[in-house]
Amino acid sequence: MVRDSGACVSVALDAMGGDLGPEVAVKGADLLLSGVVPCKCKVHLSIYGKESAVLPVLSKYKLVEKNSVFIDTPDAVLCDDRPSFALRHRRKSSMWCAIEDVKKGVVASAVSAGNTGALMAISRYLLGTLQGIDRPAIAAVLPSRKNSFVALDLGANAECAPDSLFQFAIMGRAFARAVLGVENPRVGLLNIGAEDNKGTYSIKEAFALMRDAKQDINFYGYVEAKEAFDGVADVVVADGFSGNVMLKTCEAVAGLTLHILKKEICSSLMGRAAMRILRSCYFKERASGGSALDVRSYNGAVLLGLNGIVVKSHGSADAVAFAHAIKEAVCAISQGDMAKEMISEVSNG
Amino acid sequence: MVRDSGACVSVALDAMGGDLGPEVAVKGADLLLSGVVPCKCKVHLSIYGKESAVLPVLSKYKLVEKNSVFIDTPDAVLCDDRPSFALRHRRKSSMWCAIEDVKKGVVASAVSAGNTGALMAISRYLLGTLQGIDRPAIAAVLPSRKNSFVALDLGANAECAPDSLFQFAIMGRAFARAVLGVENPRVGLLNIGAEDNKGTYSIKEAFALMRDAKQDINFYGYVEAKEAFDGVADVVVADGFSGNVMLKTCEAVAGLTLHILKKEICSSLMGRAAMRILRSCYFKERASGGSALDVRSYNGAVLLGLNGIVVKSHGSADAVAFAHAIKEAVCAISQGDMAKEMISEVSNG
Repeated sequence: MVRDSGACVSVALDAMGGDLGPEVAVKGADLLLSGVVPCKCKVHLSIYGKESAVLPVLSKYKLVEKNSVFIDTPDAVLCDDRPSFALRHRRKSSMWCAIEDVKKGVVASAVSAGNTGALMAISRYLLGTLQGIDRPAIAAVLPSRKNSFVALDLGANAECAPDSLFQFAIMGRAFARAVLGVENPRVGLLNIGAEDNKGTYSIKEAFALMRDAKQDINFYGYVEAKEAFDGVADVVVADGFSGNVMLKTCEAVAGLTLHILKKEICSSLMGRAAMRILRSCYFKERASGGSALDVRSYNGAVLLGLNGIVVKSHGSADAVAFAHAIKEAVCAISQGDMAKEMISEVSNG
Repeated sequence: MVRDSGACVSVALDAMGGDLGPEVAVKGADLLLSGVVPCKCKVHLSIYGKESAVLPVLSKYKLVEKNSVFIDTPDAVLCDDRPSFALRHRRKSSMWCAIEDVKKGVVASAVSAGNTGALMAISRYLLGTLQGIDRPAIAAVLPSRKNSFVALDLGANAECAPDSLFQFAIMGRAFARAVLGVENPRVGLLNIGAEDNKGTYSIKEAFALMRDAKQDINFYGYVEAKEAFDGVADVVVADGFSGNVMLKTCEAVAGLTLHILKKEICSSLMGRAAMRILRSCYFKERASGGSALDVRSYNGAVLLGLNGIVVKSHGSADAVAFAHAIKEAVCAISQGDMAKEMISEVSNG
């Protein structure tokens, strides 16, 4: 796979997903290609969408127009489409065609800010799961006091059997090796306390599976949400419901804290003076989402466990956030051994 | 019940709970009695603990010594006691005796920073649940962009039947009326999406119960964690697992955001200058936990659905946080109609 910085990786963009329309995907592509959001590899883009909606936007971003091909798709997945409906009736949508091109090998990965359920269903249907993986999971990198950690599942499976949680541990470990560069990642299981009488039936069973695993997981044990953000583990395994609650709460509270801080600071004269200084030294990185405080730099969750790379961007992502999702897809492509590692580990179970 | 600001309310303090020993409870009491953490009512305290551990501390805080009685209890609940063990073998503990005195009517409420499972089990055993309530829940007030919201259950019940979630809605509504002063609170149900195919079986069933309720709940529908902190609902109902994940993530990420901000600011000369200004204008309220950014002011979760008032403080609470938990107990006492409202609403179901 592509590890050389001189090589060019191809990424499919679903321009019709997301709450804010095609402008976000195209402008996000522009930020990446122009280097405002820096990326190690050269990228070539395939952009999927309705001609009438995308071409006018594309004509405004010459750099993107030059470095991409446009594929006209007559249909689009809507945000309230059920996964089963999308599977049956959205076969000419931008999302479907983008993932189909991953399957064909025309592109190396696909990025979409569209309907998560439909994206997972279509990806699973077209790409299939890796050998030995029952259910794919959504994984992302979240910030901690030490550095970062990989969290999964973030919403693909609301209810999870112990076996699935165990597979998430294996998948998360391979992902953490690839994206965090940690040799032997510590794997934690999200729970509401460290005592062994705490938690649901599934969590307790999954604990036993991870503790007794043949694969010699570097198992940390139970992790409370607070400890996860302290950085005690490199991988935090959760069912999709509580993982999603953790992710959404993290995003919301990071924003809320800055909101309250700003309000408090600006309520005094001295505070407003401090704010002006802060703006000049902190917000300089605003254009690229390069600050550690900018949640947009954490956009881009990977659908793990599939025979292909699909990245989900936030539905409400702006262009900076979308550029980071494309970057995530590029990173995932350059870590081609990850899938092989997952398969061999799961098969050893 | 006591609504007059001239009246004196009596609160029992378990001085042996919490990670940091009896000093926290006694110093917390001092901050409240001296007015550093302001409170509308006069408070009289009963302090429960081992004589050898508590009396030396008490002698350092004369104001507390003067305004409290000390009850020597030979035993204490440990943080890793199972609830069933505490029920059988900790009947002479500070926690047990404090709650027993709530039952006898000697004190109006109890506050403990001890083992949550044991506190819930002992409270439920001694006080019993309100008529029509199957399972008590832990509720607390969390911050939002609009103001605050009540969240429950925050960890008492890892798995919840739809009926329990429905009862939490009724309990949470009564609690929100009392502590937020909202006449007709909007009730939301925590989920991982707004679409009706999202979520677990229990959540979907609870949705139907709330939507079709005779009690005419002001039902907002599904709420994602992000929306909860945007302030779309006054009450957010969750199972104890995801509620706990939301609570712990909220606390962790508020701290993490300030930690990262401080690190970023202090990495530049101008930033350090701004930090000095900020310290002078913002941290002035540090002594009381009075700032909206200080998570300590949100300490104190109420065990709802019992025949009596029990408040759980964080195990890691410091004195300021513990003072806020005592304040929470005082507030709950002054809202005596809450229990009656819950009973009548649940009976109407």
